[in-house]
Amino acid sequence: MPPLELPARVNEFLKMPNHAVIACIRPDGFPMTVATWYDWQDGLILVNMHESRSRLGWMRKNPKVSVTVLDEDWYRHVSLFGSVVAIADDVSLADIDRLCRRYTGKAFANRTAKRVSAWIEPKGWHGWDDDGELSSAPVR
Amino acid sequence: MPPLELPARVNEFLKMPNHAVIACIRPDGFPMTVATWYDWQDGLILVNMHESRSRLGWMRKNPKVSVTVLDEDWYRHVSLFGSVVAIADDVSLADIDRLCRRYTGKAFANRTAKRVSAWIEPKGWHGWDDDGELSSAPVR
Repeated sequence: MPPLELPARVNEFLKMPNHAVIACIRPDGFPMTVATWYDWQDGLILVNMHESRSRLGWMRKNPKVSVTVLDEDWYRHVSLFGSVVAIADDVSLADIDRLCRRYTGKAFANRTAKRVSAWIEPKGWHGWDDDGELSSAPVR
Repeated sequence: MPPLELPARVNEFLKMPNHAVIACIRPDGFPMTVATWYDWQDGLILVNMHESRSRLGWMRKNPKVSVTVLDEDWYRHVSLFGSVVAIADDVSLADIDRLCRRYTGKAFANRTAKRVSAWIEPKGWHGWDDDGELSSAPVR
């Protein structure tokens, strides 16, 4: 499948250290949403979790996820659904450092943490804002 | 099933007009998240959509949903997963007015909109903040 094509303005929006919420599917079929740091590079969404997080096991069983990215003005938002295409131990903490620097300007404090990265390939998206800049469909 | 018991501080947090993201399950099994207004009353989450919204059809087919509620400081957040237990046309626009007043202080502008309400009964929750006030488990 070719990579999802996004308008340049949406691509630029996703590159900002915005607030984000990720949904995974629990084994009982319920979705579960939580706030998350993310990064956006080369058409993939990077997220990173402590190895003990429930959602890591859920992603391994069912790779279908969704991420909503919110501006500080949360009425501007972009949502992408897709699949986790890679999961890897973040042994050197390079990925969580990258995320932590993106959001806080500093490296990740806990240097003994067992962290795991997941990369998400989006299949579709929905955008919304009042002026139509991020919208995937005509506004109202 | 008895109603989900939440700490009083979490209940108070949910009553505030916070930012929120809802996940529904698409017919192809992917979750899809979007930003949403919500209200919290008597142990149920109220959301309201234009009748043309895809997620309304998805909820009718699969009532399993999740909602993450974010403080202005988005590192404080509470997430609830559960089921849509009622869907009803908002003929008088009373529900969307209630939501719009909660977030903007004004009634909903479009008086001819066809709006539909959904009520969600939470089955479980996860909370997080640095000082542990909202956390569902010990912090770090």
